[in-house]
Amino acid sequence: MSHFADEIDDLRGRLLKMGGLVESAIHRSVEAVVEREEEYAQQVLQDEARINQMEMEIDDFATKLLATQQPVAADLRFLTAAIKINNDLERMGDLAVNIVERAISLMRMPPVRPLTDIPLMARRVETMVRNALDAFVRKDEELARTVLVSDDAVDEQRDQFYTELVNFMQKNSESIPQALDLVFVTRNLERIGDHSTNIAEDVVFMIKGIDVRHHAEARV
Amino acid sequence: MSHFADEIDDLRGRLLKMGGLVESAIHRSVEAVVEREEEYAQQVLQDEARINQMEMEIDDFATKLLATQQPVAADLRFLTAAIKINNDLERMGDLAVNIVERAISLMRMPPVRPLTDIPLMARRVETMVRNALDAFVRKDEELARTVLVSDDAVDEQRDQFYTELVNFMQKNSESIPQALDLVFVTRNLERIGDHSTNIAEDVVFMIKGIDVRHHAEARV
Repeated sequence: MSHFADEIDDLRGRLLKMGGLVESAIHRSVEAVVEREEEYAQQVLQDEARINQMEMEIDDFATKLLATQQPVAADLRFLTAAIKINNDLERMGDLAVNIVERAISLMRMPPVRPLTDIPLMARRVETMVRNALDAFVRKDEELARTVLVSDDAVDEQRDQFYTELVNFMQKNSESIPQALDLVFVTRNLERIGDHSTNIAEDVVFMIKGIDVRHHAEARV
Repeated sequence: MSHFADEIDDLRGRLLKMGGLVESAIHRSVEAVVEREEEYAQQVLQDEARINQMEMEIDDFATKLLATQQPVAADLRFLTAAIKINNDLERMGDLAVNIVERAISLMRMPPVRPLTDIPLMARRVETMVRNALDAFVRKDEELARTVLVSDDAVDEQRDQFYTELVNFMQKNSESIPQALDLVFVTRNLERIGDHSTNIAEDVVFMIKGIDVRHHAEARV
């Protein structure tokens, strides 16, 4: 195996490790909301520093490979996809931190009605993240395309939840601060879903060389 | 002038053109909220397609230069900065669209209290965007650093506005939908400010080769 091929493998491994950390951060951030468990929240805040560090290292490494190896075709597409995926993962980590900040705010207030919708939405989003990363590793275009489709379901769920929370606020003005925190939790989950979609688009581009960003018609 | 130097100039010009479009989109999106003017909103929605198209073209162009020219030192830093700035600009365009969606929603409901805080916050954020882009063109490190500092003022303003809006919602439950839209307008403005900060960080990196992301201590 050539030295360059080794480096490509190394890069893929680092991205997956970072993906694993980000997945845990998302999962724990939602647990912190649902279980009102400060311990989970602290863990996410600690992992953020590591995720940020990894992002900078991966970005450096991939950019150097791009600038020094004169990659073409599939290698070039892999490297540009890696740089974008890295960026999306880091932002997903930031969004998990946003969720944790809402979780901590919620822990300091009396609990409101059962949060059945949050775990449901979180499960969908976590599946999107997992499938996007799996599609990247396995170069599985079909799996990547399932992520693009599930994004709409998440947006629908978010809108439904929003309407419910507005009604809830109008009837329970003393619980408006909690309801607002919950609105933001669902927004952050939705944005994590959006980043999974970005990753899935990059995977399709990496495999096929087709750019499906901003082109709904190319998605189907 | 070498062919590569011409291409670098071309890339810079394209980024500035895109920056100009994004600045207009942000300005118009806020006007749409404040003036309740559907015309402005439609303009932003139209420009989004152009911004997305430009982003893909710039990204392609910069990545190809990176992969074929084996740039080093300042040229390498310029190209990686250009790719990131391009991405931030496109996201700022998306956030202007988010603001416009809130503006349209607000136009369909009775107006609520005078929105003096929104134009004030918008002005600050627009200055951040302008300064970040100027710092990029003029390679002005000092100006880039002023952007990093103004981010805190925007965050503070957003928190203050949030508290006011929670109080307002508790007293005017019939206006909760409008107040929620306004909360999201300020969040989107804040996120535009965050992207300006990213651009400013990239400018510092481009000039000095110092990475100031995630390192508050290196910012001062």
